[in-house]
Amino acid sequence: MKTESRIEPPDFALAPAIQDKLDGKTKPRGSLGRIESVALRIALIQGSLTPRLCNPHVLVCAGDHGALGDLRGHTLSAFPQAVTWQMVENFLAEGAAINVLAREAGLRLTIADAGVAHEFGRRDNLVDAKVAPGTASWFDGPAMQRDQCVRAMTNGAALVGQLAHDGCNIIGFGEMGIGNSASAALLTHVFTGTAIGDCVGRGTGLDDSGLARKRATLAGLARAYTGERDALSLLSQFGGFEIAMITGAMLAAARARMVLLIDGFIVTAALLAAHAIEPALLEYCIFSHCSQERGHAIQLRHFDAAPLLDLDLRLGEGTGAALAFPLVRSAVAMLNDMASFEQARISRREQP
Amino acid sequence: MKTESRIEPPDFALAPAIQDKLDGKTKPRGSLGRIESVALRIALIQGSLTPRLCNPHVLVCAGDHGALGDLRGHTLSAFPQAVTWQMVENFLAEGAAINVLAREAGLRLTIADAGVAHEFGRRDNLVDAKVAPGTASWFDGPAMQRDQCVRAMTNGAALVGQLAHDGCNIIGFGEMGIGNSASAALLTHVFTGTAIGDCVGRGTGLDDSGLARKRATLAGLARAYTGERDALSLLSQFGGFEIAMITGAMLAAARARMVLLIDGFIVTAALLAAHAIEPALLEYCIFSHCSQERGHAIQLRHFDAAPLLDLDLRLGEGTGAALAFPLVRSAVAMLNDMASFEQARISRREQP
Repeated sequence: MKTESRIEPPDFALAPAIQDKLDGKTKPRGSLGRIESVALRIALIQGSLTPRLCNPHVLVCAGDHGALGDLRGHTLSAFPQAVTWQMVENFLAEGAAINVLAREAGLRLTIADAGVAHEFGRRDNLVDAKVAPGTASWFDGPAMQRDQCVRAMTNGAALVGQLAHDGCNIIGFGEMGIGNSASAALLTHVFTGTAIGDCVGRGTGLDDSGLARKRATLAGLARAYTGERDALSLLSQFGGFEIAMITGAMLAAARARMVLLIDGFIVTAALLAAHAIEPALLEYCIFSHCSQERGHAIQLRHFDAAPLLDLDLRLGEGTGAALAFPLVRSAVAMLNDMASFEQARISRREQP
Repeated sequence: MKTESRIEPPDFALAPAIQDKLDGKTKPRGSLGRIESVALRIALIQGSLTPRLCNPHVLVCAGDHGALGDLRGHTLSAFPQAVTWQMVENFLAEGAAINVLAREAGLRLTIADAGVAHEFGRRDNLVDAKVAPGTASWFDGPAMQRDQCVRAMTNGAALVGQLAHDGCNIIGFGEMGIGNSASAALLTHVFTGTAIGDCVGRGTGLDDSGLARKRATLAGLARAYTGERDALSLLSQFGGFEIAMITGAMLAAARARMVLLIDGFIVTAALLAAHAIEPALLEYCIFSHCSQERGHAIQLRHFDAAPLLDLDLRLGEGTGAALAFPLVRSAVAMLNDMASFEQARISRREQP
């Protein structure tokens, strides 16, 4: 990836003025709880007492994982690999959960082929960012060559650059990739230092024996790794094209001072890599939800993050981000549109 | 209140067919968590595999509490009583939190004067359902005479009847009334049997000494009560006009097979009374959020309810219901609009 300017945190000097504005609204101080925190964060990100959310987007990146296709009997997913491309077709046909939820939330949806093991041909509404038709198998070495990983990240950054150019200033991230909860578990292990067993979950729905096999397989892979520990090496080794593309997209989005809506386990794995590269990007993130997938809580603790929703979701695709977006939009509307005590001529005397 | 037909629970015979439809959607089974539960509940309420939400509304009822105005030094609220009517004016001027959040959520808002201690005159957009200008003081006896309480309930039922006639089939409830967290605490105590001290919270923002005084005052009132224990007697004794109006509105809404969106501590106190009268209405309720006001968690446990949001809200006005509504709307859209595995031709083979 070409060297770019560091990501700077927002200027916190505006915080007292934003807090004053919040406290002047016609409500008991702090009574909108986390909604007020979201408003504060977005005002800080935009450096404005009157922030605006423009052209809100969800970017869904899809990719396949080589380990799934190598047929050595390592059960890493409850669904076959073909479901990745079939679900991309479902996205394009607007039949998937993220299509419905993004539409309900007023979010535009961009679908990108980061590296699906399928030839889609030229398709309207599908961004061709395919680095290769699926990653290599972890059993043979790194999932991606370093240059492949960088290419996927650059593709994500370029796409976000285009969205920013078109006026988008808030972006949610989603993913599709059968097997990517295994990849995310490995990344969670190496970036947080948590025991691999605790990072592994059921993904799309493994049963107990499937989960035990997945756990054993991934523990073996984690033990066997003796390579470099820098972010790019770890992401290349254990990531996937869709995850690397999201990592690059996140870095570019924070650099463009967008608001980043973080979804579930896979997307937060991409954030672990992005955060290792540029810690300040965390200040641009809003955590949408806590997934039922086991490792997500570990990731959230790593970031000391308090997500907005806790609805036992475990679907991915950016569905948690789409479900949380109306809360974010409402927070901004509250800051902009609610009357102050002075405007509404309401007695402010507390504790008479 | 005139005798009306009992509220019947929805017909659960449709549940397996609804569950089949949910399980056939292109996602791992159950992976949309609580969103699926909401879809199931609404489909059951409407007795339909293709439920629709029509003319969604929030009804905000306002009233004053006599104990607040009697100036015996009993600190029951951090704000003076005049804030009730001032906030009603703020609602009418569209400057309050509920105005902004309802608009964001696509909810129509109806404001009703159930018994505010203020003469508004004829006002567009304000439903005049005033039983009296504030309740009597608990220190002198019941807050409402029995016939006043029934009148407030009937007013709520009539208003909901009109909304139902106009095609509304989902309604959230909100309230405004300085001092009504004291009323709700007393109702929570008598309807759930929880110690009064545990039911009392800071309301709009009492400090520690204010909270201690409120707790002592309400404990004295609770101890002194030796009257009847039926729902109407308890509601008359410790309720308020806005709470009784909401109780009547809830009963009418469930009778009309609407979906009821339950807000925070005060609204759930109204539900305690409604539930004591007609237990089956609970099947029509969706709990929006868990309030930061201490007693709300007690109420939710009483109903074994798992609210959708937990955002440290403690504002009232129906704001939690408005914030939760997009989740509810998304749940219905998911059930109706997502493709099935068959429609999308996606491999369903799990655990290969």
